[in-house]
Amino acid sequence: MLSKSQISLVTSLQHKKFRREQGLFLVEGYKSIIEFAGSPYQIHTIYHTPDVGPKLLNLSRNINFQEISINELQKISALKTPADALATVYMPQDTDLLQADLKNKFTLVLDGVQDPGNMGTIIRTADWFGISRLICSEDTVDVYNPKVVQATMGSLARMTVNYTDLSTVLTNSSLQVYGALLNGQNIYHTDFGSEGLIVMGNEGNGIRPEIEKLITKAVTIPKLGGAESLNVAIATAIFCSEAAGKLSK
Amino acid sequence: MLSKSQISLVTSLQHKKFRREQGLFLVEGYKSIIEFAGSPYQIHTIYHTPDVGPKLLNLSRNINFQEISINELQKISALKTPADALATVYMPQDTDLLQADLKNKFTLVLDGVQDPGNMGTIIRTADWFGISRLICSEDTVDVYNPKVVQATMGSLARMTVNYTDLSTVLTNSSLQVYGALLNGQNIYHTDFGSEGLIVMGNEGNGIRPEIEKLITKAVTIPKLGGAESLNVAIATAIFCSEAAGKLSK
Repeated sequence: MLSKSQISLVTSLQHKKFRREQGLFLVEGYKSIIEFAGSPYQIHTIYHTPDVGPKLLNLSRNINFQEISINELQKISALKTPADALATVYMPQDTDLLQADLKNKFTLVLDGVQDPGNMGTIIRTADWFGISRLICSEDTVDVYNPKVVQATMGSLARMTVNYTDLSTVLTNSSLQVYGALLNGQNIYHTDFGSEGLIVMGNEGNGIRPEIEKLITKAVTIPKLGGAESLNVAIATAIFCSEAAGKLSK
Repeated sequence: MLSKSQISLVTSLQHKKFRREQGLFLVEGYKSIIEFAGSPYQIHTIYHTPDVGPKLLNLSRNINFQEISINELQKISALKTPADALATVYMPQDTDLLQADLKNKFTLVLDGVQDPGNMGTIIRTADWFGISRLICSEDTVDVYNPKVVQATMGSLARMTVNYTDLSTVLTNSSLQVYGALLNGQNIYHTDFGSEGLIVMGNEGNGIRPEIEKLITKAVTIPKLGGAESLNVAIATAIFCSEAAGKLSK
């Protein structure tokens, strides 16, 4: 049986302000929870329906478990159709971003991506291609937004995310800074090598002028048909594919 | 002022059954409506707020225009946040699918894609890469679903879509049939040439076994990280990029 204060705490985590205050965020669904349980993230409590209890009990004993009914789950879930379990998970400490961490790999840099579904899909796609770090401008959508977490399908558990001033990071970097821009080099003729930063812009406005100045190689996905633009998650996927995917044997 | 029967007609078009009965579907937003007005599609009526009236009046005189308030638009819109205009558009006649139409180009074949957002994004992406035909299994989500139309951002106006029995089409085709499958050839080592059918499967279950049998070249996007799968719209984009995008100069 859930107490009023539990319901109030969990539902408050749908809002960024309360996530910061409590230092917790929501992960829903058994499969995603398992991914977080097997990662450096620390789970606080798992609220689960009777159906998934036995499966979950194989997890660490440092986690609180509470069996609840599907009606109770509905009350605390951020989803229209709740899954089978919901976990409250500790937000990691902000980690310093060291330039050395960016060497010998590709890192995605997001300048103001707003849509939670796009953000989640970007994380899931980056994870598929073995990209494990994301650097976001301060106004990029919060990765701990329940809709983002949901759309990552567990991939957030494997992603290191920094929110920071992009100008500082890009100015201090000795790496190639690729940017998705119009009138850049054809992406299919671009040699990405084996490391670099890949900057993607906001859904409507693209990359900000002050960030665009710091891009060392403008790259374009050539338009062969009539669409005015590509969705940012789709464009990011094509960059991940061309840069990281190509390195597959 | 909208009549009750107008409200009832327009809102009924959110349902496939009534779209088929009326032979009409909904397009929302000035920018998308302009794309359909400049295509072979025939628009029935444009309901518009006072703000966009003058712009729209440059369109063909064979279209009915009706100025309505934003409150009235809210009543007939399928969107949470209605745009500035809504059009009812005639559904095209089913066209025969001729094998000759598939030569010298790439065509997407969707086997049971269910999510309207995925479907819309697939159409928008295909349109970017100059792919203008989609062949769908009968159980694939209806392209005239308002959520699909919305997500295509006007690209549906440039796409020919057939719903048909995929087995028949693939059996009769002399073209290469590429399929997104596990354990296929690495997509980055695949030469797509300049024509062929590209089969993508359902979000959860992939391509049906009876369709898989008809694939002549299984192709895989190699997994370099931890994600269990790629979203189907993302996977489709990478196939479009590798097959059609590569042909860009």
